[in-house]
Amino acid sequence: MGHEFDSHIDVTRESDGLYSADLNAGWVVGGGVNGGYLLAVLGNALRAALPGKPDPLSISAYYLSASRPGPAQVAIDVRRDGGSVATAAADLRQGDDVRITALATYGDLDLGADDVRTTAVEPDMPAPDDCVPTTLAPEDVRRMAPIMERFDIRFHPANIGWAVGQPSGEGVMSAWFRLADGRDPDPILLLAIVDALPPVTFDLGMPGWAPTLELTAHVRAKPAPGWLKVRHATRNMAGGMFEEDCEVWDSAGRLVAQSRQLARQPR
Amino acid sequence: MGHEFDSHIDVTRESDGLYSADLNAGWVVGGGVNGGYLLAVLGNALRAALPGKPDPLSISAYYLSASRPGPAQVAIDVRRDGGSVATAAADLRQGDDVRITALATYGDLDLGADDVRTTAVEPDMPAPDDCVPTTLAPEDVRRMAPIMERFDIRFHPANIGWAVGQPSGEGVMSAWFRLADGRDPDPILLLAIVDALPPVTFDLGMPGWAPTLELTAHVRAKPAPGWLKVRHATRNMAGGMFEEDCEVWDSAGRLVAQSRQLARQPR
Repeated sequence: MGHEFDSHIDVTRESDGLYSADLNAGWVVGGGVNGGYLLAVLGNALRAALPGKPDPLSISAYYLSASRPGPAQVAIDVRRDGGSVATAAADLRQGDDVRITALATYGDLDLGADDVRTTAVEPDMPAPDDCVPTTLAPEDVRRMAPIMERFDIRFHPANIGWAVGQPSGEGVMSAWFRLADGRDPDPILLLAIVDALPPVTFDLGMPGWAPTLELTAHVRAKPAPGWLKVRHATRNMAGGMFEEDCEVWDSAGRLVAQSRQLARQPR
Repeated sequence: MGHEFDSHIDVTRESDGLYSADLNAGWVVGGGVNGGYLLAVLGNALRAALPGKPDPLSISAYYLSASRPGPAQVAIDVRRDGGSVATAAADLRQGDDVRITALATYGDLDLGADDVRTTAVEPDMPAPDDCVPTTLAPEDVRRMAPIMERFDIRFHPANIGWAVGQPSGEGVMSAWFRLADGRDPDPILLLAIVDALPPVTFDLGMPGWAPTLELTAHVRAKPAPGWLKVRHATRNMAGGMFEEDCEVWDSAGRLVAQSRQLARQPR
């Protein structure tokens, strides 16, 4: 039995460096398709185009226009493939419109050195059952954001006040994450996870859409099965923009992905 | 009188989207040309190609091969130019070899909103004259790294022990920075500054070259004249790679640039 997520990110090879995809309406949030899901579709096409280098080590995506559910294409230009890594440029298109243009370096995370030195501290979270599930969200919110049905998300209670009009003002959001369909995490799923939470500006009392200009994700290790912990934070809003840093930790307590995006401040 | 830095990053338009540059030997460090300087050359060509959008807001560079001093070309493909920002792809080439492939979004930092909310904390540094100048470095080190003559750099004494074989082990490095030629900082100089210090792995007791795979820089504000404070830190080394986060603060105490790179651990 296949998992929903795998069918939603599936790509078909049309010709050398050209893949077709079908952007699933289940990933809509508000008026657009979630940027993390789009990154996973694009990342899945890159994996298909780079045999022997299955894992995204780094991907930098520039969001040029809003995607719609439906057919899309990913065009890939391998820029360098030698040694242990390969670098490629990739465009996600719908018709004549480029939605995302990206650069990425892929490799094999199983071949890396064993030496791990981490001073980063795993976020302290209450157990999933002591956190706030998205199933508590009002029906009209859930209808506007079908993406919420894709995941089992449990928000840290300390930074969920924005949902009831009482943002903490800290610019932080954290949650437990797993796919609703039970599929275990892998490096491609991490690309979706780093941009799946609401904008961290909600916690600053600024509801509204915060369009991503640029997002770079680094996958630092293959995630262990089970729950992921995701933490978003911003430390600087200026000139109408803010950065959103994301960390993803796996069930073994390992930092498996880091990302930063530059986004426009909600109006 | 022109400044040295401006002549070193100068580009000449050859044709639509094609610029020539001359990589100056004064930016060599060890066997290669400093990646920050290369980013400033590439960033200067992008500025020339995007009239009305003078400032890099975000630039993501993937380093494909090591540059040599001498002639180079920057080929630019504008991917979207509409509204307040423009996004372009750019390659820095020498002969048939692509040295760097990059994506960037440019705009005008003077047009941004005035609202600034920063919870990031400016690094605490002793006064420049109480820090450690690079002029104290041994003659043979300075000969291997002519880049040291381009800047007036004063290292925080707490994290300079690596220079005498006593790294702190914290994975942190910070310094005061200004150009030796007296030119004041601007957004293009910030692109050089975010990758001008030695690898932060020196402070972990790992001397040696740490090749950058990917570096993304966000310029968050125009820097005020005078000294810049630069802080590098890493929190995770795994699978033979580490991230290096950089912050640049200006003399007015404002966070003017943030960057992160993914680099290979020194052997």
